[in-house]
Amino acid sequence: MNAQTQIANLEVGFDVPALPGMDESEIQTPCLVLDLDALEYNIKKMGDYAKAHGMRHRVHGKMHKSVDVAKLQEALGDAVGVCCQKVSEAEVFARGGIKDVLVSNQVRDPRKLDRLARLPKLGARTIVCVDDLDNVAELSAAAQRQGTQLECLIEIDCGAGRCGVNSAQDVVEIAMAIQAAENLTFTGIQAYQGAMQHMDSYQDRKAKLEIAIAQVKEAVEALKVAGISCELVSGGGTGSYYFESTSGVYNELQCGSYAFMDADYGRILDENGTRIDQGEWKNALFILTSVMSHTKVDKAIVDAGLKAQSVDSGLPTIFGRDDVSYLKCSDEHGVVGDPDGVLKINDKLRLVPGHCDPTCNVHDWYVGVRNGKVETLWPVSARGKAY
Amino acid sequence: MNAQTQIANLEVGFDVPALPGMDESEIQTPCLVLDLDALEYNIKKMGDYAKAHGMRHRVHGKMHKSVDVAKLQEALGDAVGVCCQKVSEAEVFARGGIKDVLVSNQVRDPRKLDRLARLPKLGARTIVCVDDLDNVAELSAAAQRQGTQLECLIEIDCGAGRCGVNSAQDVVEIAMAIQAAENLTFTGIQAYQGAMQHMDSYQDRKAKLEIAIAQVKEAVEALKVAGISCELVSGGGTGSYYFESTSGVYNELQCGSYAFMDADYGRILDENGTRIDQGEWKNALFILTSVMSHTKVDKAIVDAGLKAQSVDSGLPTIFGRDDVSYLKCSDEHGVVGDPDGVLKINDKLRLVPGHCDPTCNVHDWYVGVRNGKVETLWPVSARGKAY
Repeated sequence: MNAQTQIANLEVGFDVPALPGMDESEIQTPCLVLDLDALEYNIKKMGDYAKAHGMRHRVHGKMHKSVDVAKLQEALGDAVGVCCQKVSEAEVFARGGIKDVLVSNQVRDPRKLDRLARLPKLGARTIVCVDDLDNVAELSAAAQRQGTQLECLIEIDCGAGRCGVNSAQDVVEIAMAIQAAENLTFTGIQAYQGAMQHMDSYQDRKAKLEIAIAQVKEAVEALKVAGISCELVSGGGTGSYYFESTSGVYNELQCGSYAFMDADYGRILDENGTRIDQGEWKNALFILTSVMSHTKVDKAIVDAGLKAQSVDSGLPTIFGRDDVSYLKCSDEHGVVGDPDGVLKINDKLRLVPGHCDPTCNVHDWYVGVRNGKVETLWPVSARGKAY
Repeated sequence: MNAQTQIANLEVGFDVPALPGMDESEIQTPCLVLDLDALEYNIKKMGDYAKAHGMRHRVHGKMHKSVDVAKLQEALGDAVGVCCQKVSEAEVFARGGIKDVLVSNQVRDPRKLDRLARLPKLGARTIVCVDDLDNVAELSAAAQRQGTQLECLIEIDCGAGRCGVNSAQDVVEIAMAIQAAENLTFTGIQAYQGAMQHMDSYQDRKAKLEIAIAQVKEAVEALKVAGISCELVSGGGTGSYYFESTSGVYNELQCGSYAFMDADYGRILDENGTRIDQGEWKNALFILTSVMSHTKVDKAIVDAGLKAQSVDSGLPTIFGRDDVSYLKCSDEHGVVGDPDGVLKINDKLRLVPGHCDPTCNVHDWYVGVRNGKVETLWPVSARGKAY
């Protein structure tokens, strides 16, 4: 039975929110809807940009957690593979046939080290980040136990204040340890400045990235002095990829949110002061929601609350509507301001989630739509894979 | 193959975060951990309270979304069944063997109406909330199509400002329509004051509940005048159940969070000014997390971020530790302040989530622990069932 036959046998409602061929009005809400035209536009555009700038594009799989989306990014956007943040995600992508997988994070738990070191046996080039000398020995031991080869990027903390080493000297020290360790390969540098991606002003983002780029250049230079070369210098996000691509030192991008867009990213401005969701990228991801109660004249209650989205970066916006607005969120409900009383029971609204990554992580399915019809259903394959 | 044999065949890491028999230190993090002693204590205590006050206790299944926890609440806490918020949740509970299921919400979508009306065929008493006259006809038509009987509670908006009718007159009008409709039974009133549950002061909560109780009494009285009696008057939560239980009008509770507790509920005060997580209830639910990077002397990075919890009601707290604190949350990481540098790589911390309901909804499994050992593994059976 192939995947599409399996899906056709699922029960609408209990198993899946919709089936291919259904009209958009029949979809059981709340659920995630992908506008396939917009998704393909975004994927092609970023692929073309990366190619034009001589950059590899390793798409960030942690955003969508979907093997199907990752494969579309390979097919339409020349993606070289994925990065992801957890071993369990890497397991899903490697088992799903992605051949180049970077865990852009540290792996320290003993059992996770062995799980990671098993991935090359699935045919996936497996790369992991390191920010601590002790971790080199742990990774080497796990790779030896499994009889595999692991590649390492040294993570530099270039402004996020989380993981990553803090000096070029640390980079060189760890790189030398990796080179000396059995079953490990030193592959390069991971330097993602996450803290600046959501700053509204292009110039503010640029200033932060210049600091990061200087740190990366210093590290690459120090490695060169020590006789060590970097195959990959990897980083960059939807709010910064043009800086990394023209830095002269990065050669791999790791963008995620560009493919789907969300309300928080959408608000940031490009070089000309235009919101990036008004020109650079299209909104491809929506939470489809329905009006299910309307006992107050000026408020409609919709069925998408905290179980259908993450509001860590603000409430969702309502796509294409100026007459109604999402005011409030509780576990199971959203309160939509409807001052003119235009909404009726069962009316459907497309919400643009505040933050795409943790919103995708609460859903089991993407419902792909085109021209008002359900065209495809993709599982959120690595949903809940946080360990 | 029984459920426990099926679980034993799952792969630790890829499929499940742990297996029964494992030491707590071997659990793959982040994941949800239930302290079984604390859980049983909470469940028994609320069951005893309800019994002593002559109240039915219909536990709120939307909180835990677990058939196993609901059955434990029936076995140890005299629960009469569950309430839940979505038809898909009701489908999970009814298929899982729960015999009395209230969808404490409105159902308006045509396909959802039929899904709801099918539930009695699974042997479940099926009750649903109504706040609109048109909905009576829709429910009746669906129940006739399926050849089943649906029971209806009329929802009163007693302060939440969401769903529910706004006057006793509306209650009587809809009740009469339900009584006249084929395949429907009028069963009573739903009146849950959600907005006050998290107010810190006992007296403030009491004042809000008195308003709600007065509304409910007025509605019951108006029904009586019209010759209509209420079998069930249902409502109440962890921050209010003592008010409903002594109101003289409610006869059914709907508490949820008491079983697990969370940081936001834990902060509210009982009649004596004591936090309810310091006497009334025990913390039974935790997000187990591990230290996975520590390159800054005073900050440890843990593996539980926004994919492991909902921060809509604030950040998690760290259970049993005054020396470290959870400062910041990003998609995959938590930043833990460690001023004395006491944390080491792979150290595990128990986080008390800010808000239990949407936090449970991002995880696939509850890992039940007792005396430092994994005793059981329960699926979050209705996880993601929002439609």
